[in-house]
Amino acid sequence: MQKMTLTQPLLDDIKITVTGLRFHGKVADYIPELSFMSPDLFAISCVSLDNSAVETGDVNQYFTMQSISKIISLSIAIEKLGMKEVFKYVDMEPTADSFNSLMRLEMSSPIPANPFMNAGAIVICALLQSSFGAKAFDEIISFTELITGEKIEFSNKVYESERSTSDRNKALAHFMKSIGSLPGDIDGFLELYFRQCSMMCTVRSLAKIGALLASGGISPLSGKRILKKNTAYAILGLMTTCGLYNGSGEFAVRVGIPGKSGVSGGILAVSPGNMGIGVFSPPLDSKGNSVAGLYALELLSEKLNLRNMGKS
Amino acid sequence: MQKMTLTQPLLDDIKITVTGLRFHGKVADYIPELSFMSPDLFAISCVSLDNSAVETGDVNQYFTMQSISKIISLSIAIEKLGMKEVFKYVDMEPTADSFNSLMRLEMSSPIPANPFMNAGAIVICALLQSSFGAKAFDEIISFTELITGEKIEFSNKVYESERSTSDRNKALAHFMKSIGSLPGDIDGFLELYFRQCSMMCTVRSLAKIGALLASGGISPLSGKRILKKNTAYAILGLMTTCGLYNGSGEFAVRVGIPGKSGVSGGILAVSPGNMGIGVFSPPLDSKGNSVAGLYALELLSEKLNLRNMGKS
Amino acid sequence: MQKMTLTQPLLDDIKITVTGLRFHGKVADYIPELSFMSPDLFAISCVSLDNSAVETGDVNQYFTMQSISKIISLSIAIEKLGMKEVFKYVDMEPTADSFNSLMRLEMSSPIPANPFMNAGAIVICALLQSSFGAKAFDEIISFTELITGEKIEFSNKVYESERSTSDRNKALAHFMKSIGSLPGDIDGFLELYFRQCSMMCTVRSLAKIGALLASGGISPLSGKRILKKNTAYAILGLMTTCGLYNGSGEFAVRVGIPGKSGVSGGILAVSPGNMGIGVFSPPLDSKGNSVAGLYALELLSEKLNLRNMGKS
Amino acid sequence: MQKMTLTQPLLDDIKITVTGLRFHGKVADYIPELSFMSPDLFAISCVSLDNSAVETGDVNQYFTMQSISKIISLSIAIEKLGMKEVFKYVDMEPTADSFNSLMRLEMSSPIPANPFMNAGAIVICALLQSSFGAKAFDEIISFTELITGEKIEFSNKVYESERSTSDRNKALAHFMKSIGSLPGDIDGFLELYFRQCSMMCTVRSLAKIGALLASGGISPLSGKRILKKNTAYAILGLMTTCGLYNGSGEFAVRVGIPGKSGVSGGILAVSPGNMGIGVFSPPLDSKGNSVAGLYALELLSEKLNLRNMGKS
Repeated sequence: MQKMTLTQPLLDDIKITVTGLRFHGKVADYIPELSFMSPDLFAISCVSLDNSAVETGDVNQYFTMQSISKIISLSIAIEKLGMKEVFKYVDMEPTADSFNSLMRLEMSSPIPANPFMNAGAIVICALLQSSFGAKAFDEIISFTELITGEKIEFSNKVYESERSTSDRNKALAHFMKSIGSLPGDIDGFLELYFRQCSMMCTVRSLAKIGALLASGGISPLSGKRILKKNTAYAILGLMTTCGLYNGSGEFAVRVGIPGKSGVSGGILAVSPGNMGIGVFSPPLDSKGNSVAGLYALELLSEKLNLRNMGKS
Repeated sequence: MQKMTLTQPLLDDIKITVTGLRFHGKVADYIPELSFMSPDLFAISCVSLDNSAVETGDVNQYFTMQSISKIISLSIAIEKLGMKEVFKYVDMEPTADSFNSLMRLEMSSPIPANPFMNAGAIVICALLQSSFGAKAFDEIISFTELITGEKIEFSNKVYESERSTSDRNKALAHFMKSIGSLPGDIDGFLELYFRQCSMMCTVRSLAKIGALLASGGISPLSGKRILKKNTAYAILGLMTTCGLYNGSGEFAVRVGIPGKSGVSGGILAVSPGNMGIGVFSPPLDSKGNSVAGLYALELLSEKLNLRNMGKS
Repeated sequence: MQKMTLTQPLLDDIKITVTGLRFHGKVADYIPELSFMSPDLFAISCVSLDNSAVETGDVNQYFTMQSISKIISLSIAIEKLGMKEVFKYVDMEPTADSFNSLMRLEMSSPIPANPFMNAGAIVICALLQSSFGAKAFDEIISFTELITGEKIEFSNKVYESERSTSDRNKALAHFMKSIGSLPGDIDGFLELYFRQCSMMCTVRSLAKIGALLASGGISPLSGKRILKKNTAYAILGLMTTCGLYNGSGEFAVRVGIPGKSGVSGGILAVSPGNMGIGVFSPPLDSKGNSVAGLYALELLSEKLNLRNMGKS
Repeated sequence: MQKMTLTQPLLDDIKITVTGLRFHGKVADYIPELSFMSPDLFAISCVSLDNSAVETGDVNQYFTMQSISKIISLSIAIEKLGMKEVFKYVDMEPTADSFNSLMRLEMSSPIPANPFMNAGAIVICALLQSSFGAKAFDEIISFTELITGEKIEFSNKVYESERSTSDRNKALAHFMKSIGSLPGDIDGFLELYFRQCSMMCTVRSLAKIGALLASGGISPLSGKRILKKNTAYAILGLMTTCGLYNGSGEFAVRVGIPGKSGVSGGILAVSPGNMGIGVFSPPLDSKGNSVAGLYALELLSEKLNLRNMGKS
């Protein structure tokens, strides 16, 4: 395989190629505050294990993490409580159901299928609330700052917007409480969930989080271990099978590396042993994943042979 | 990470470590003929891109491919009809449903979620039957022989046993026919499905198929391209998210490489750019995956850093 | 309430009123042979407990019983095996699922929800096959002849047509067999099911069956007890809650008496202690019930106060 | 049929016969306040269309109406808004799902299957809240007082207990809001739902409500029309198919008249054109229906020929 090298011109080329695809998607509007994002924004950042970055586009544009933050809270929960305890409350299997689906909880299993569906992410927030109480959100912010080396801000507007349109998430929480699947007390953890979704980041922040996972848990910034190796394995495994909601299967076919998307239009991807990648373009497909973001990652994976294909 | 080298003693050690786990599983008995396999059998074979093999255990033991054969028929279907045509009839998303589940076809989507669930694999057989008619099974055998360089036999006993206990698969076929989701004529393709499941192989056969995928479609035997690169991508992507039925998520966490299991106790796994792996141990867990096989792959992945983790 | 008397002019008036409604329905075509029925056919017959009849329309038109025959086979099964034995294999609860639904069998309960859904009716045929062997269909014919005092013919054309378009029913049978919910041997009973659906009747035949149930099991023809009182109770109870598939709830609101419909356009209804009613008009609504037939029964129920409403 | 006459000794006999059955049931405890009821309480009251009563047992024992109150709020909604408007928001079909089931709302239909499941009853409360605002509960109380001629009290303790254990009902409300199936504003109507469930009644109150329905909507007390005939038809039709949750089918087989149960142990039944019946015994079966109450109604139906069976 003719494998290219990661360079600024390569990313610029990808940007030009995928830019037109934004018209095939639609900026999320179920959270009103998200709908104000320009559909023309686009950025991509790659951060390697030695912390060097190659980037293009609107790399300084802030957006909210949304579901990508589920990586952070899950990491903290596993580090704090251990794999065994966390996966008592949530399973690790992908489903073909939409991200906010509830029916399987009544139909098949009382615990959520995985921690990246909303139901599972709410359970993780409940676990953090139980462990850290009022300091749970500080914990999430601090950990994100530790990984990224950035000061992490929080969008109160998006948070308020999420809260005011949170019927489905409330339904999930109350349903799980009613069947005894939600650990701890019901108060507070939905706030925590909305707050983590409202953390602000750039594509570079995402790429840095990805680089930490690519290294197996050792910080590219400090060289210190931040995550246990098994925590990184679990996060990457779950990203591989469940990271793009009910588009995860297609992502594995088209891109072939672990990823995690958010409805603000960001996607975090990981090339293990190599680099973290952040991409951003607000217009989404019907499953809630960034259209241009997906295609950019597909091109990048192909051109850099991120699947590690052999002779071909 | 202290990465070991793949050697015979390493595989021997793994064999010793995992051997006791066979008592936690149960040899499949829903197909009577499978239940005659000794639970004590164990083998592992690794074939690298240069076609060299490292192996241990009952490496000459033949067993039937069962669901692992779905890789072969799907490959042929994609090569013959193209990605676009094939994925009109089957989706590429994992589910948390059991391998023989039907309900989603009535509940959510008229086409099977992916080609590795029984429903999806039956659709693939129907496509091959439409394309190749009476020669469809010859096509499957020939292709398997081309990949492995072996003469592939077929167990008539297992085939008869499958046929006589095939109510669930018949239900799937008739249901899909009734909702218009099954291409072509209903006659014959279930035979094809039972036949492909009854092809005989050793762990080395599996490892060779894996090595083909690891190379991106170029035969380690002949150096010739056998599969288009995009076909290999699709197969590997689907193995990653759907290869171990509703245990695929856990496999991604514990092992972290593409795999495909069968109820005879075999698992085929792939380390892209590196090697193909075949493992065999008949006792299964509740999801239909080999207990000792899973653990052997977990150890191998860890010791050889098959996830390509970075600094750690 | 101004209650009218049942007279020929009353039925003639109802016929005129409902006739135009046939254009809102569609003659069944999933069984090709059924689609040849003229949409303009209409008949209604009321047979009282003293065996006197008041009728209008195409009262000599023969049509196939289809699902209405489920009343006959269920009656025989209960009489032969007893309530307790029969309701081990099928429940007695209505669902909001369509008549040929399968998903609940995988999702909630291994036995069919009630004997009037196809799955449940197939189980009843399997029970009769187990009890009577090759004579099962003779038993059904004889019993229908005993009730109606008519020679019952059987449409080979419709039977062949049903057989050749029977994928859904085969799916139901094989699925139930695969989960161990089907008593006895799988061979033969689907034939029995298709055969009973193909028995020929007129609206008067239906009204006579209804009159037997209205009397609590004593034949209006002979004055002899043909059904145990508890069998009549069970049949009428099931007709009340499940007789019109997933339109049973609306039927109870609009008509308010026990009924059982078939996709050929017939409906059998019962006014307990009073009379049996047969109505026929081929065009069906989306749930498989005769449009004009439903409205005719609604008018008849209203004008004759068939709900036994009090002072009003 | 040897039909008995309704007398005090007949009810006394039934009481003696069914009393032992209370040990087969279990007093509801999911609402803590309900669990304090003695399992030994039993009462039955029959009120005929001329307002005369025959009764036995603890006829002066107050208990909360629970789901039986759904009859009242649905009646008001239909009278105020009309059948057409009300049944835009809720269907009229029975399901085999439990009373508090949610999955069908995601899986099949965005509106609840019927107004007697919790989801449907919550929709009815939302409609009343929209129509009457803060006066909605007064409306319910006044209407119940008009029907019964009694001063209706309200149990604040049960209300508080319901509120504090209301996760499932909150889940239903938020879920329906999230899919746009809940009319009006979300605030207040769950309070209304809990309040109506907490209205106090005796078996005589229930029998009087039943007598109103038995007369087709004309008050046995005043001789005045209180409900339109079509409203009474709708209520009775829905009671027939959905009144005992997922035990409605068995009730139709065993008892054969319209009924509506509540988890406090009350059942309201109607013999159209004849009388209303109230029965009370707290221990419930697994579906939430009073064990002894069901059997008492079965005996009463049999002995008084409430099914209006003919010659038998």
